Amino acid sequence: MSMDVDILRALRRAGGGSVSGAELSQSLGVSRAAIWARVQDLRALGYDIEASPHQGYRMLSTPDLLHADDLLSRLESIRVIGRDIRVFQETTSTNDVIEKLARDGVKEGVVVFAEAQTKGRGRLGRKWISPPGKGLWFSLLLRPALRPEEATRLTIVAATALRRAIANATQLRPEIKWPNDILINGKKTAGILTEMHAEPDQVKHLVIGIGVDVNLEAEEFPPELRQIATSLRAETGEAVDRPELACRILKELDAEYERLNAGRFSEVADEWEEHCTTIGRQVSIRLGERQLRGRAEALGEDGALLVRSEHGRLEPVIGGDVTLEKLT
Amino acid sequence: MSMDVDILRALRRAGGGSVSGAELSQSLGVSRAAIWARVQDLRALGYDIEASPHQGYRMLSTPDLLHADDLLSRLESIRVIGRDIRVFQETTSTNDVIEKLARDGVKEGVVVFAEAQTKGRGRLGRKWISPPGKGLWFSLLLRPALRPEEATRLTIVAATALRRAIANATQLRPEIKWPNDILINGKKTAGILTEMHAEPDQVKHLVIGIGVDVNLEAEEFPPELRQIATSLRAETGEAVDRPELACRILKELDAEYERLNAGRFSEVADEWEEHCTTIGRQVSIRLGERQLRGRAEALGEDGALLVRSEHGRLEPVIGGDVTLEKLT
Repeated sequence: MSMDVDILRALRRAGGGSVSGAELSQSLGVSRAAIWARVQDLRALGYDIEASPHQGYRMLSTPDLLHADDLLSRLESIRVIGRDIRVFQETTSTNDVIEKLARDGVKEGVVVFAEAQTKGRGRLGRKWISPPGKGLWFSLLLRPALRPEEATRLTIVAATALRRAIANATQLRPEIKWPNDILINGKKTAGILTEMHAEPDQVKHLVIGIGVDVNLEAEEFPPELRQIATSLRAETGEAVDRPELACRILKELDAEYERLNAGRFSEVADEWEEHCTTIGRQVSIRLGERQLRGRAEALGEDGALLVRSEHGRLEPVIGGDVTLEKLT
Repeated sequence: MSMDVDILRALRRAGGGSVSGAELSQSLGVSRAAIWARVQDLRALGYDIEASPHQGYRMLSTPDLLHADDLLSRLESIRVIGRDIRVFQETTSTNDVIEKLARDGVKEGVVVFAEAQTKGRGRLGRKWISPPGKGLWFSLLLRPALRPEEATRLTIVAATALRRAIANATQLRPEIKWPNDILINGKKTAGILTEMHAEPDQVKHLVIGIGVDVNLEAEEFPPELRQIATSLRAETGEAVDRPELACRILKELDAEYERLNAGRFSEVADEWEEHCTTIGRQVSIRLGERQLRGRAEALGEDGALLVRSEHGRLEPVIGGDVTLEKLT
C-alpha cells in the first residue's frame, strides 16, 4: 500500500485537527523529509493540506477527484470489494479493463474507476454517456461460486447496495427498477451491467459495471434522455462529493456481497423487493420476439422476476425490456 | 480468399488427374508465372505437386499439416463454422485466441487451430496435453441467441458432431460420456470445453474448444493417464490424416449447428442419447460438496442430464464430475 494512503488516513482520522510531522514520520517509519515530499505531491493533486511548523499537518479540504490512495484510505474495514482500487483518467469501458485483469488472474474485489469512458455501455450493448468528472463510472471483479443462471443474484446484490448508498448520501428516495436501474422521481440515475465469463455449469468470473449520474447538469444529458434520465445534482440541487459517495457504495457492496456468500441472499432480496418499483405493478416485458404482460409479483430464488401472466401462470423472467404500466 | 485455396481446390477436384497451367491461369485470372510461384511455395510446405510441361499440375500427396488454405479448399459447402480458419504453430490455448477475436468483433464461425498448445485446458481448469503435430487442438466462435443456462446445448451439439466425424473417419465406435468426453473402448480420446461471455439473460458469445488425441503413441501419454486416455492411432493401429479429420469434424459441426438454429435441437439430442454411454447407467456425480447417485435417464431440453436419484426424484444436472458405476 502506498504511503499516501497512510498519510491521508492519519489526516482524516485527526478530523479538523493536526498531526505532527514527527508522529507521521515515526508511525510510517520514514523521514520527515519524505513525509513533506508526499504532502507536496498531494497538494499538487488538490488536497488542501496546511503545514504549520509547530502543529504539523492539517487537512482543510479534499478535491472532487477519484484518487486510489484517497479511496483506499477511507475504506479500512472492507473485506473484498475495494481492497484493490485503480483509477484511470479515461478508458473505453471499465468493464473491459476489469475483464483484462480477470484474465490476468487478479484476485476478486479489485475495482476500476475511470473519470471518463469513451465507450461506456449499458445492458444489451446500449451506450452509456460518461462525461469526465461528472459521475461515478466503475467496475468490479468477483469470482463467486455460482452457476450461470444464478448470476442475476449479483445484479440484485449490486442494486440493493447502490440504492442504499445513494439514499444515505443524499436523503433522496431512490427506487429500483428491475433488473438493473436506480430511479429517482421516476427517472434513471444509475445503472448496473453484469457480465460473466463462464462454463455452462460454473461462473469463472463476473464483472459488475456501475454508472451513477452524480453531478451532471440537466442540460448535459442528450435531449432524447432528458425526460427519462436525471442526476443526483439535478434532483438535490447541489453538487455531491464523488469520492465520498464512491466509498459509501463500495462499503455497501462489500457488505451485501458478504451476505450473499454467507447464504443470506433472501435477506438481500427482501430489502430489494421493499424498494423495487416493479413489484406489484402491471408490467409489459419484451422477451426477444415475445411480449409478456402481467403483474410482477416477487423476486425468485435466482434473482428472476416472477410475473403472473394474463393467463394466470407465474413465469420467471431473467431479462428483457420492462415497461411499467399504469399503477393498479 | 487466398489464391492457394483455389489452386488446391482445382488440384483436388481433378482427383489423381492433371490441371493445365493455362486452365488455372485463366480461371484464377492471374499469369502462369504467378501460378508457378504459388505451386513452388506449396511444395515447400510439403504438398507433392508434379509439374509436367505437357499435362500441367498434378497433386501426388498432401502433408499431415494444418494449413488454413488447404482446409478452406476442402470446405466448399460450409455455412458458418469454418468459413474463416486461422492456424497457429503454437499458442497458449486456442480458446484464448478465439476469445480475443470475439472481443474484436470477429463474425461467428471463425476456427483457430494450433499445432501445439502450451496451456491447453479442459473443463474446470484442468490441463490438456497438446503436443505438436499429434492431435487436433482447435476452437471456434459462435454467437447463438441463447440464455446462459442453455449453453450446455452447444456442448451436446459439438459432442454429437465430433462423435459422428470420428466414427466415419475411423470405423471405430466412439461413445459420448456426458457432458463433454468422447470415449473409445472406454478411454477418453477427445474432449470439449465450452466457455461463454454472457449477461445474465443473454449469451454474448460462446467459445467451443475441442481437443482430439489423433496420432499420439500410447507412450506419449503421461503414465497417470495411460489407463484412461487413448488416441485414434493407438486404437486403429495406424496414423490418421489430421487435415482430413479436421474437415470432417468442421462439416459435422456446421451441420449440427444448423440443426440447432433451425429449432431442431431435439433431433441432435436424440442422436446424442443413442451414443451416450452415460444414459441408462448408474452414475455418481460430484456437485460441489454434494454427491448425487442415481440412474441417468435422459437428456433434458437445455442439455441437462436427467438423473433419477435414489429417493426417486428426477434431478436435472448441468455439470459436475461423473463417475459411471457398474453396468446394471
